[in-house]
Amino acid sequence: MKARVTVTLKPGVLDPQGQAIAQALGALGFEGVEAARQGKVIELDLAETDAARAEAAVRAMCEKLLANTVIETYAVELRP
Amino acid sequence: MKARVTVTLKPGVLDPQGQAIAQALGALGFEGVEAARQGKVIELDLAETDAARAEAAVRAMCEKLLANTVIETYAVELRP
Repeated sequence: MKARVTVTLKPGVLDPQGQAIAQALGALGFEGVEAARQGKVIELDLAETDAARAEAAVRAMCEKLLANTVIETYAVELRP
Repeated sequence: MKARVTVTLKPGVLDPQGQAIAQALGALGFEGVEAARQGKVIELDLAETDAARAEAAVRAMCEKLLANTVIETYAVELRP
């Protein structure tokens, strides 16, 4: 099955990439962009076919490698 | 309203970051990861309150700045 992991900075953590995007959008003439934050998305193809086991494995991957849980949060979505 | 833009590499475009993730997961003992691809997610806070106008504006932002449409695709999700 396939898993999509979305890793985003926790609220309150400084996000210079997001600030750069917001400024650049303003400079390009897009008004009304109050804030921008950037995160990453990781799409995994898994051999596992059981949803519960796949979710447990992906959460373990997030804790060990994919997210820095001091400053980032993650969300896992699975689909067959 | 809020918009979430997900930018991912088009199929067939080489993704060394994703390959590095898949290799690192294997090295950490996670078996059954057949492939990994990495993209980015950008969350925008918009002053616009009309969904149709907000979506049009965000798509224009993607075409001009947020995505490189030669090698990347994007998806836009809006919520109030």
